Amino acid sequence: MAKSRPSKRASSKSISRPRAKSRSNAAPAGGKAAVSRNRQPAQLRVALLGFGTVGKSVAKILCQESDSPLLLTHIFNRDVRRKKTASLPKRIRWTERIEDVLASDVDVIVELIGGLDPAGDWVRRALRAGKSVVTANKLLISECGPELVDLARSAGVRLEFGASVAGGIPAIIGIQEGLAGDKLYRIAGILNGTCNYILTRMEAIGSSFQAALKEAQELGFAEADPSADVDGIDARAKLVILAQAGLGLRVRAEQILARPITTIASVDFMYARDLDCTIRQISLAERVVSPETPNRVRLAGAVQPALLPSDSLMAHAQGSQNIVTAFGEYSGRTVFSGYGAGGDPTAVAVVSDLYAIARSTGAPPGALPKPAQVPDEITGDFTVPHYLRFVVKDRPGIVAALATILAKYGISIDALLQKPGFPHSALSFVMTLESCDSAELNRALAEIAQLDFHVEPPLCLPIFSE
Amino acid sequence: MAKSRPSKRASSKSISRPRAKSRSNAAPAGGKAAVSRNRQPAQLRVALLGFGTVGKSVAKILCQESDSPLLLTHIFNRDVRRKKTASLPKRIRWTERIEDVLASDVDVIVELIGGLDPAGDWVRRALRAGKSVVTANKLLISECGPELVDLARSAGVRLEFGASVAGGIPAIIGIQEGLAGDKLYRIAGILNGTCNYILTRMEAIGSSFQAALKEAQELGFAEADPSADVDGIDARAKLVILAQAGLGLRVRAEQILARPITTIASVDFMYARDLDCTIRQISLAERVVSPETPNRVRLAGAVQPALLPSDSLMAHAQGSQNIVTAFGEYSGRTVFSGYGAGGDPTAVAVVSDLYAIARSTGAPPGALPKPAQVPDEITGDFTVPHYLRFVVKDRPGIVAALATILAKYGISIDALLQKPGFPHSALSFVMTLESCDSAELNRALAEIAQLDFHVEPPLCLPIFSE
Repeated sequence: MAKSRPSKRASSKSISRPRAKSRSNAAPAGGKAAVSRNRQPAQLRVALLGFGTVGKSVAKILCQESDSPLLLTHIFNRDVRRKKTASLPKRIRWTERIEDVLASDVDVIVELIGGLDPAGDWVRRALRAGKSVVTANKLLISECGPELVDLARSAGVRLEFGASVAGGIPAIIGIQEGLAGDKLYRIAGILNGTCNYILTRMEAIGSSFQAALKEAQELGFAEADPSADVDGIDARAKLVILAQAGLGLRVRAEQILARPITTIASVDFMYARDLDCTIRQISLAERVVSPETPNRVRLAGAVQPALLPSDSLMAHAQGSQNIVTAFGEYSGRTVFSGYGAGGDPTAVAVVSDLYAIARSTGAPPGALPKPAQVPDEITGDFTVPHYLRFVVKDRPGIVAALATILAKYGISIDALLQKPGFPHSALSFVMTLESCDSAELNRALAEIAQLDFHVEPPLCLPIFSE
Repeated sequence: MAKSRPSKRASSKSISRPRAKSRSNAAPAGGKAAVSRNRQPAQLRVALLGFGTVGKSVAKILCQESDSPLLLTHIFNRDVRRKKTASLPKRIRWTERIEDVLASDVDVIVELIGGLDPAGDWVRRALRAGKSVVTANKLLISECGPELVDLARSAGVRLEFGASVAGGIPAIIGIQEGLAGDKLYRIAGILNGTCNYILTRMEAIGSSFQAALKEAQELGFAEADPSADVDGIDARAKLVILAQAGLGLRVRAEQILARPITTIASVDFMYARDLDCTIRQISLAERVVSPETPNRVRLAGAVQPALLPSDSLMAHAQGSQNIVTAFGEYSGRTVFSGYGAGGDPTAVAVVSDLYAIARSTGAPPGALPKPAQVPDEITGDFTVPHYLRFVVKDRPGIVAALATILAKYGISIDALLQKPGFPHSALSFVMTLESCDSAELNRALAEIAQLDFHVEPPLCLPIFSE
């Protein structure tokens, strides 16, 4: 907002390069003695596994500061000749052999390979070899987080995974440490920037899902195969990590309901607008204890498209932004938002984790704060108002038929919306329902699906307030 | 959102009480051997200084968990007989003598006294005695933070102050650790819940400043003497702490411009609405380096009422909520928001800091990440659009007179707004100005103030976009 541009610390780059060079000149062939002579005592030697978008950003940030406690020494990638860049210090060893890294004297390995295999094996080998690990791998942490944290602890090293959820937003540290003093009971958020980009574009320009997806792919916000994003698989892995970090509940990803956003049509945004709402992919996990069974812990969780009030904070997250909200008994609702993906924001999370390790050398390994509990029950059902959109071949008696079935299940209709201009052969209209249990509603919908006037399967979305 | 109420861990309270009792029975007169026999090895003994709203919440949270690494052992307050409550474990020693705490075997002192004196002296004595300190004292940390951190470091203990800014929102840890990998250049936020409550009430019901203040006082959101809040002094202390934690810049509070919100009238909200804006007390600090003088660091900072777009994220903070936004070179804008004050949210920040100390026992003391830099220049000027509101005794030629002076200083008028219905003797109208340097504008306003038609001094507010 001020007149001049913010500091870019323009001078630091030119200082760091000659220094780095003199280091690599003075340290012949990695000899231990030579290395320790040229190395600040607290400096951590860092290896990067994976030199894609995030890896490049991490390397750039690590090599920019001249007096950093972090020293990038190894980069592992396939086909390093293609990847190698002259913009990084010459001391860095480029390799295609994972053994070169695992057998080296690096202190920390940054795992940016992704996926379970071979990344999981490499992370385990690194931890067993006494190296701390920083990872952005949501799949690995959601599947094996507690096991890997235990492994790190027993090896006396640290495992940090702040970059595995919501990229540059410090949600894990914010929830796990910043709110450690509270008892959190709900985590809700927008955890997938691709879905949020697609849905905000559908909202802004009225485009179809396919057109918005194509635009997202052209701009690099969506992959060629977008299924992990649009089906909710990506967000679900992050929700599993947040449920563990924030709610102390241990679940497997496949136990959590994930519903795709591919069913959302531009007409749904038209009707949502009439309801002063918008539609977003919402990830929600809640620790629930019924007064009747106080010893039984239930996890209510799902990743799904949902209606939200247009003026709600989550509706405010535009484009590829992410938002994480945590609800605590004492602190109420705390919100973290920002850029959840992209090379630079994710790299900030990785480098921040590296700093945390540098600061804490000698301290006990990073840990999930309490041993997580396995919930007695996991459900994707919520008792909330719902939105039902039908596309029907019009004839008299349709609303009566629907209302009769809903009434049978004790479900009350709140409003009926019908825009003009649809053909009788494919008439689109919307019903909103008063708060009801989605399990009960699903039973009603199974019966409704048997009726003969549907042109498309009915769409059912929860309506979340804030 | 789910059917049942969130878990209150109803059973934990009944478990913790008998346990605590058996502890106090088994440990006669604080004998070291007896204490260590009955104490978990990693358990930290905690003393509270101050048993007001926040202190009570901290005590409640600390005594609720049965297997906590934190054990509340001492409570210091004036007139403890009046304060003493049977709801806390009997082992707790209540005292009116600070020496009882400083000479005891507590590991951590939680300072909730506030103010510089005697709190500062007690914190120093505690640190020198080898006790870690957790404080919510924004005044002390803004004045003496670096000195106290150094003192803690040299004593081998920790000083944590997460509760000193924005209550329950983990802004300090989020910025200082979660974004450690980035270079932040701007911190902006709503840091005072009292002002935000008053301004959001003025906006919502069109009340005057005095009426909204009175309501806030009746509801306990404002003190009997509200000057520290409404004059910006409270927010300024927090901004100084954030500037140090986030921007690495060391300033004294009195070097930062603070302008009161008392000048805002209900008519300003009417005009702001016509501009699709609202008015909030905004705290802003920015690290600025001009390309011409790359070695010169300027801090542009101020606490003041300002116009914001109604749909901006900061305008979204309602009532007593706080919001902190951090802008980084790599992560873009990251937002933290929630409840910035009140007993329970502030207690969450205090207890989270206690957990951080419990986790890190043996690690180096908590530290501001890099030695902070003293800026070469500190300014309260920003180059942004501005809002000018005049109340005048109407006569022809007023706009011409104003426009002539503004033109002389090279300042362009963007729009002129005048609502109907004001008397000619006190006509209120508004000018918005295109982006200009506020220092230059202040010179023009000094000249404008000399004109003879003013009924009130002109009000000048910056218009911040996001």
